[in-house]
Amino acid sequence: PIQSAGRLRSMAIILGDHQYGKAESRLVRIYRDQPRHEIHDINVSTALRGPWDAAYLEGDQSNVLPTDTQKNTAYAFAKSKGVESIESFGLDLARHFVGDVDPVEGARIEIEEYAWERAIVDGSEHDHTWLRKGQEVRTAAITVDQTGEYVIGGLKDLVLLKSTGSEFFGFLKDEFTTLPETHDRVMATALEAKWRFSTTDVDWEAVYVEVKKLMVKEFATLQSLALQQTLWHMGTAVLEAIPSICEVRLKAPNKHHFDYDIGRFGIENKGEVFWAADRPYGLIEAALIRDDAPPANEAWRAAAGLA
Amino acid sequence: PIQSAGRLRSMAIILGDHQYGKAESRLVRIYRDQPRHEIHDINVSTALRGPWDAAYLEGDQSNVLPTDTQKNTAYAFAKSKGVESIESFGLDLARHFVGDVDPVEGARIEIEEYAWERAIVDGSEHDHTWLRKGQEVRTAAITVDQTGEYVIGGLKDLVLLKSTGSEFFGFLKDEFTTLPETHDRVMATALEAKWRFSTTDVDWEAVYVEVKKLMVKEFATLQSLALQQTLWHMGTAVLEAIPSICEVRLKAPNKHHFDYDIGRFGIENKGEVFWAADRPYGLIEAALIRDDAPPANEAWRAAAGLA
Amino acid sequence: PIQSAGRLRSMAIILGDHQYGKAESRLVRIYRDQPRHEIHDINVSTALRGPWDAAYLEGDQSNVLPTDTQKNTAYAFAKSKGVESIESFGLDLARHFVGDVDPVEGARIEIEEYAWERAIVDGSEHDHTWLRKGQEVRTAAITVDQTGEYVIGGLKDLVLLKSTGSEFFGFLKDEFTTLPETHDRVMATALEAKWRFSTTDVDWEAVYVEVKKLMVKEFATLQSLALQQTLWHMGTAVLEAIPSICEVRLKAPNKHHFDYDIGRFGIENKGEVFWAADRPYGLIEAALIRDDAPPANEAWRAAAGLA
Amino acid sequence: PIQSAGRLRSMAIILGDHQYGKAESRLVRIYRDQPRHEIHDINVSTALRGPWDAAYLEGDQSNVLPTDTQKNTAYAFAKSKGVESIESFGLDLARHFVGDVDPVEGARIEIEEYAWERAIVDGSEHDHTWLRKGQEVRTAAITVDQTGEYVIGGLKDLVLLKSTGSEFFGFLKDEFTTLPETHDRVMATALEAKWRFSTTDVDWEAVYVEVKKLMVKEFATLQSLALQQTLWHMGTAVLEAIPSICEVRLKAPNKHHFDYDIGRFGIENKGEVFWAADRPYGLIEAALIRDDAPPANEAWRAAAGLA
Repeated sequence: PIQSAGRLRSMAIILGDHQYGKAESRLVRIYRDQPRHEIHDINVSTALRGPWDAAYLEGDQSNVLPTDTQKNTAYAFAKSKGVESIESFGLDLARHFVGDVDPVEGARIEIEEYAWERAIVDGSEHDHTWLRKGQEVRTAAITVDQTGEYVIGGLKDLVLLKSTGSEFFGFLKDEFTTLPETHDRVMATALEAKWRFSTTDVDWEAVYVEVKKLMVKEFATLQSLALQQTLWHMGTAVLEAIPSICEVRLKAPNKHHFDYDIGRFGIENKGEVFWAADRPYGLIEAALIRDDAPPANEAWRAAAGLA
Repeated sequence: PIQSAGRLRSMAIILGDHQYGKAESRLVRIYRDQPRHEIHDINVSTALRGPWDAAYLEGDQSNVLPTDTQKNTAYAFAKSKGVESIESFGLDLARHFVGDVDPVEGARIEIEEYAWERAIVDGSEHDHTWLRKGQEVRTAAITVDQTGEYVIGGLKDLVLLKSTGSEFFGFLKDEFTTLPETHDRVMATALEAKWRFSTTDVDWEAVYVEVKKLMVKEFATLQSLALQQTLWHMGTAVLEAIPSICEVRLKAPNKHHFDYDIGRFGIENKGEVFWAADRPYGLIEAALIRDDAPPANEAWRAAAGLA
Repeated sequence: PIQSAGRLRSMAIILGDHQYGKAESRLVRIYRDQPRHEIHDINVSTALRGPWDAAYLEGDQSNVLPTDTQKNTAYAFAKSKGVESIESFGLDLARHFVGDVDPVEGARIEIEEYAWERAIVDGSEHDHTWLRKGQEVRTAAITVDQTGEYVIGGLKDLVLLKSTGSEFFGFLKDEFTTLPETHDRVMATALEAKWRFSTTDVDWEAVYVEVKKLMVKEFATLQSLALQQTLWHMGTAVLEAIPSICEVRLKAPNKHHFDYDIGRFGIENKGEVFWAADRPYGLIEAALIRDDAPPANEAWRAAAGLA
Repeated sequence: PIQSAGRLRSMAIILGDHQYGKAESRLVRIYRDQPRHEIHDINVSTALRGPWDAAYLEGDQSNVLPTDTQKNTAYAFAKSKGVESIESFGLDLARHFVGDVDPVEGARIEIEEYAWERAIVDGSEHDHTWLRKGQEVRTAAITVDQTGEYVIGGLKDLVLLKSTGSEFFGFLKDEFTTLPETHDRVMATALEAKWRFSTTDVDWEAVYVEVKKLMVKEFATLQSLALQQTLWHMGTAVLEAIPSICEVRLKAPNKHHFDYDIGRFGIENKGEVFWAADRPYGLIEAALIRDDAPPANEAWRAAAGLA
């Protein structure tokens, strides 16, 4: 949707959606007031929306807060506001840009968080040493503008695999269909999930743990007839259990594991030896939404260049 | 926007936007009817949209054409239809899925193309040997649905740099602003551009060459007051010169090149020695659109997982 | 060192070290004889060494076992021999190629393993669903040739960070030295370690766990005066505790975490807010070896193209 | 080989090969004395070798020139010495570290260069705007130590493909062999090549162009019976034509292009439609050396962590 009508130029070319910001500020916040330190390791991208027409059309920067300043602000806030949860930190930044910097009309903050686990030394957790956990990346996307505040939590690269409990049969066939039906296959994915909150009054840490737990449980326990069905169950489990979440979006590659044909060598393969393929892969996507969800407005409009 | 109202389930959870397909089929098409062979090296992702509610809600695949079949179709069409341009090849695939496969209501085809240049042997182009060019990746995104046909051309990872002719000054300052103004800096980006066509009656190859040429020229010749202004000029140059294009979207990281402080060692650095930083980077985005552009509908709704 | 003297050609060009094989066969082995399945997820590269001069000089393949055959063998052995430990699986493959395929004189097998952890459902470990752990990658490199059998265990991408307990001072200074000394800094690395065994009679799984534990402990507990010193302590801890290991090689980037200067904004930063830089980084390398270690011969000669 | 005997510690653990340095300093050098600017875009890694035992064993840095200083030196030399060729720039750095910094006994400099081509504006080359070429990466590895000076030139990621003129037949078969023979296939690789010079009195730029040209020609024109044979021809062509090069090392993945079976759909595929696979791939390696080549000593001992 074209939001801000740009000034006319020859041929009536309009400046449509636009924004600018600083992407991927890698920020580590250590809490060291106690002997047992805490760590938050994040990747922050900020983008500002507003009346920047003069910057585009004429190169006039008088309303443009430099991206360098946005970066400085993120690092300053990491100390002055603290980094408790990426959702709340994103809200702090977005509210500041919209509330304190005059021409800014909207702010989009996207953050990734990389989890760490404490080093175990002689059976005990160490006070100030960690191993990067390396599993899924936690994500957040916060939008604040004239219409309100919007928070999206999420995760990506959560790699899941089940070695049985997955079928695929009864599908539509045309002249290009050669896939055999199966009642037992490996199902694997690298899940990307985003969930929209209908409020900002949330225990962000507790909800994150709960969402991940719910999704993993559904993936594991459903006798799956297709990845589509698994996604639907994962999404509904979250929506049914967590009132503050009103919408879930899921994107799941079907990471194919093909039975390797060792029968040619007189060796039986009963779902035991697979080639894990890279490309191509299936890609299944779905949004699930409560019927009473508030309007999303710009909540899903992306900004950042997070790798 | 929620398009297809899913069936109700407990708590009135609705299935919103959904699609499924096969992503990243790496396909090489060789034309070898003449001694001088031709090569097209592409990465094809297909996604289908339609009444798949039963697949998600109940695991019923009777309307689901397997992603494996979509892949087979792409390889079959590479021979039967040919791969002349990625835009036309995408149209061939999309029209087939919507027109020939009964339940399909919409198809989204996304393609990347990797360019090759002929090996030079004793001063002449070789008939059947190539070097991968390695510069920008050409992209296309084709949507066909009940409302019509939509083609988006594009490129990504076009890395551009100018060593002078770029300034940044007169910007807004707040308490977190420390950036000095400059009237001479390096400007570099890795451009991602997409352009929407208002027709499918296009010489795709000629337009692609022209768009790239126009954008490079504007980047080079404009005395830039900010990357925003450069993007506006690149986009308007395309819209003014090519009537079949009605919208341009640009996404450009500001790849920072910082003067390295060798003055500390008594050596003067007059814009000659830079540290090329990885992260963070500025990120500037803009859409430019003619005021008479036809509706985009689902043209910009992405599908694929192209790396 | 030039090992096999190639046949002479005009100008006396000699074929020196050479080998060929199949790299990066992604292989997943599921054990499903019990309701509680087991998974091994590995990446296998094989390379053969021997009298392949005719293949290089004349294109004569009569002694060349195809790389496709090597791949088939790996998948067949995954069932017939099983994948208990990557070290023993590599030995199985290497012994086969050298012992059973006539012209082969030496085999080099390199394997990566990706760890998985069981999904937790209602507080219990699930029988057949896993999350990819995502932490370090375990590695093995096995060489079998006329001189014997050599096994190297290893890990890579073990990302470690300590938020205090690291100093760097008293270093050499020249005219290009501007680094301030410090008695408290963040130290972080992405460790790559390899350890050579002096025997093949090893409990591979137990040793792996122990090596990782020892290295993490040293990294955590040593008051470090430099990453060099930390590496020495990590290596000696392994060599002192594990008699079957005779040599350790370590490669550790110094992943710089720079204090972000928020003092400019009147905010004190007491080692709490850091910019985690990508490049450049320090790179520290060391080998530690027992004085009674047996000869390494070709143990360290690499083969594969593991990503 | 164990070079510097470390001090003994309990259990006689010896410090073997070790070195430290700064990896991947991304450095851009602009020449702007004339209106037509020049650009050199490089990635520099330096490593120092010498008596650093005290740093490893006791944390004593008194002989350790910080990696930060090494980085400063590279940027300072980019102006004071200039970046004409990466080989000569590497020699400048290596000679400085060994000659001017007292405890340093050996220096290893590894550099990558990314080529740029001038923007074309209205048919003419632009003075100060470039497009990153994106094809192969040029490499150099320079070693200076007590035994002399060693220069290795190279390239990587040169992606080559020929659509005919490649065969593979007559190979060894065992019980795991299923590969059909072929007299016409696609052959493709992403070549990595390194060449050792026997002198430093070289026109580095001219030689680089010539080596690439020779290798491309051999790849294109040889009717190949295997990638091994192609590599041998590429290497000998270089050694026969360029007297200053005494050794060539080649590493070439066999990037498989598999005929896609569209015969199932009644469509004939006469070597026209291929699936370009990612993994696994063949991997062929070879060294070629003149019989009168001077000793390599440490020339091939790697240092850096170049991505």
